[in-house]
Amino acid sequence: MERILTIDDFEALAIGAGILGTGGGGNPYLAKIRAIQYLKEGIDIKLVNFDAVPDNALVVSVGGMGAPTVGIERIARGDETYRAMLGLENYLGRKFTHVIAGEIGGGNAIAPMIVAAQSGLPVIDGDGMGRAFPELQMDTFMIAGIPPSPAVLADHLEHVTVFDGIDDPTTLERFARVVTIQMGGGAGLAMCVGDKPTVQNAAIPGTTSLAIAIGEAVLQARSGRGNPVQAALGVTGGRELFTGKIVNVERRNEGGFAKGILNLDGTGEFSGHKYAIDFQNENLIVRTESGEAMIIVPDLICLVDEDSAEPVTTEVVRYGLRVSVLGIPAPVQLKTEQALKYVGPAAFGYPQVPYIPMEGTYGQPAGARA
Amino acid sequence: MERILTIDDFEALAIGAGILGTGGGGNPYLAKIRAIQYLKEGIDIKLVNFDAVPDNALVVSVGGMGAPTVGIERIARGDETYRAMLGLENYLGRKFTHVIAGEIGGGNAIAPMIVAAQSGLPVIDGDGMGRAFPELQMDTFMIAGIPPSPAVLADHLEHVTVFDGIDDPTTLERFARVVTIQMGGGAGLAMCVGDKPTVQNAAIPGTTSLAIAIGEAVLQARSGRGNPVQAALGVTGGRELFTGKIVNVERRNEGGFAKGILNLDGTGEFSGHKYAIDFQNENLIVRTESGEAMIIVPDLICLVDEDSAEPVTTEVVRYGLRVSVLGIPAPVQLKTEQALKYVGPAAFGYPQVPYIPMEGTYGQPAGARA
Repeated sequence: MERILTIDDFEALAIGAGILGTGGGGNPYLAKIRAIQYLKEGIDIKLVNFDAVPDNALVVSVGGMGAPTVGIERIARGDETYRAMLGLENYLGRKFTHVIAGEIGGGNAIAPMIVAAQSGLPVIDGDGMGRAFPELQMDTFMIAGIPPSPAVLADHLEHVTVFDGIDDPTTLERFARVVTIQMGGGAGLAMCVGDKPTVQNAAIPGTTSLAIAIGEAVLQARSGRGNPVQAALGVTGGRELFTGKIVNVERRNEGGFAKGILNLDGTGEFSGHKYAIDFQNENLIVRTESGEAMIIVPDLICLVDEDSAEPVTTEVVRYGLRVSVLGIPAPVQLKTEQALKYVGPAAFGYPQVPYIPMEGTYGQPAGARA
Repeated sequence: MERILTIDDFEALAIGAGILGTGGGGNPYLAKIRAIQYLKEGIDIKLVNFDAVPDNALVVSVGGMGAPTVGIERIARGDETYRAMLGLENYLGRKFTHVIAGEIGGGNAIAPMIVAAQSGLPVIDGDGMGRAFPELQMDTFMIAGIPPSPAVLADHLEHVTVFDGIDDPTTLERFARVVTIQMGGGAGLAMCVGDKPTVQNAAIPGTTSLAIAIGEAVLQARSGRGNPVQAALGVTGGRELFTGKIVNVERRNEGGFAKGILNLDGTGEFSGHKYAIDFQNENLIVRTESGEAMIIVPDLICLVDEDSAEPVTTEVVRYGLRVSVLGIPAPVQLKTEQALKYVGPAAFGYPQVPYIPMEGTYGQPAGARA
């Protein structure tokens, strides 16, 4: 499968990626505007699935690193991620043939498309998270054992930093995080992934198409053909946990992350109930008033506008927003024992919370046959 | 001039570099032990002056980066700086022909000798500071306009970080500092300096020989041929400011630096007077009881044992030590208007203190003819 992406695809992708972003991954709006500008200039952006990738491909994983709150306050120059990729090519002395998203959540779903427009390379349909996560070691590429280095960060002033000799993904995260902060809180990142069999073995396939399909369903429902929130769930799987009004946002920039807690009062049939959501760029745990965890990372906790299903990201949540809170089961690749070391609740500082997977299958609506 | 360094040279260099280190540059003792070990294994370490360097040489500046306090708590593996140099060669796709010290103060005077033993390259007699300083932009190579990147850090776990595209030395300092901290507080650093004319124009020449000569004079005096402190001053220039006992050490690790204040009570003819020395890895300002600055950075403030002239570095100063405090005039290269932007008191957070150069000439005893 090869597909030239259209403006409509990007409108849909921004919504779907925003929902899968579980609050993080960077705001997709700015990335979408930039990608569409390339289409209007006549540049093709090609999406391919793994069947269309030759075995000897050299694939690079690309995206933005940093706090989403910075991404909307300091607009990116637009070529940071491309420059990171060029920096990695220069370091390796090899040219990449394909790009793939590090995370399909938020603006990072679109970052590879922008690199594709700048480099002419096709984008592989898939990613390394199936959602968004705050740290690099939470990537299925690394969980599957692909070496975390060499990796390259680049910023809007054309500063480039190459990391090499790093075998431990958490070390790369530490090193790259402090440099990202010095780069002003946001940077483009490129990590070498490998040839096709290596990448296919490690990636979560089809997530780009999934994000586009989520957005298409939402847009169709908004055009009068149904309820946008239910339309999204009809593609993602999972269920609406509750509807509520945000009554408090406790948010701070800490160590390069947007961290905090949201408090919500239930609305409609959930009136009288209170909820809290812990986040670290992404939403991590949603709890009831009694403190009971309803949905736990790596399962997805997504805030969307209750009417339009427009995703509500961490950097724009504010008092008074009325949202629907969705729970979506994590991709199976995130639920293995090995993966849960990196993406389970203990990895986020909740060692006392056991991960109890929510029912259902990622990308398959409840009741659908697998 | 070419000279194969001897064990005696290293014994002398460790003392001279310790004095010129003004408290910082890393403890020379461990570096000396390591260098002598190479000599005992039959490896030659060659020191050359600029006359013996061909114009088409490719010179790299090498040394350790980090807080001196870390250097004595976590013994270096010993090849960090060499690995940084190899990382830079790999990045450039070129081989270096000569190494030169980034700073002649402290262990960093000996770091290039260790790289020389490991690489077989000769060491150029000179450095980029004529003393020690805490930050990279305080290097005469950068003050003279040599680009600060590419530069490479390497650590004891073989992690390598390459910085490129950086035109501003202070930016390199920021980036490299945070990575050094992630590397555990200490790392090896290599920065490309250039061909011979470029380096000769920017370096402070002859400082390696000067440090050895200081140490030789001290060692001879210790053997009964005079007063070691006066012997040192007979080579360095400058004068003894006072003798005193350290009565308080306020020291903290902050942002990768050992920062603090020393308080001293005068002894002997200085009894009844009190003094304070501000330091940030290196000693910056010495003041009298009334707060008057006696000697101001970039002039050198050196603590030595009052009997043996053994240098007392920032990481070993402690209550009760009896020291002689020396003031040594800075090299002329550090006193230009351009240099003072980077190494004058304002650069260290003392904008209210004007730099008043002390009398005398670096490396020339008072009364000697220039």
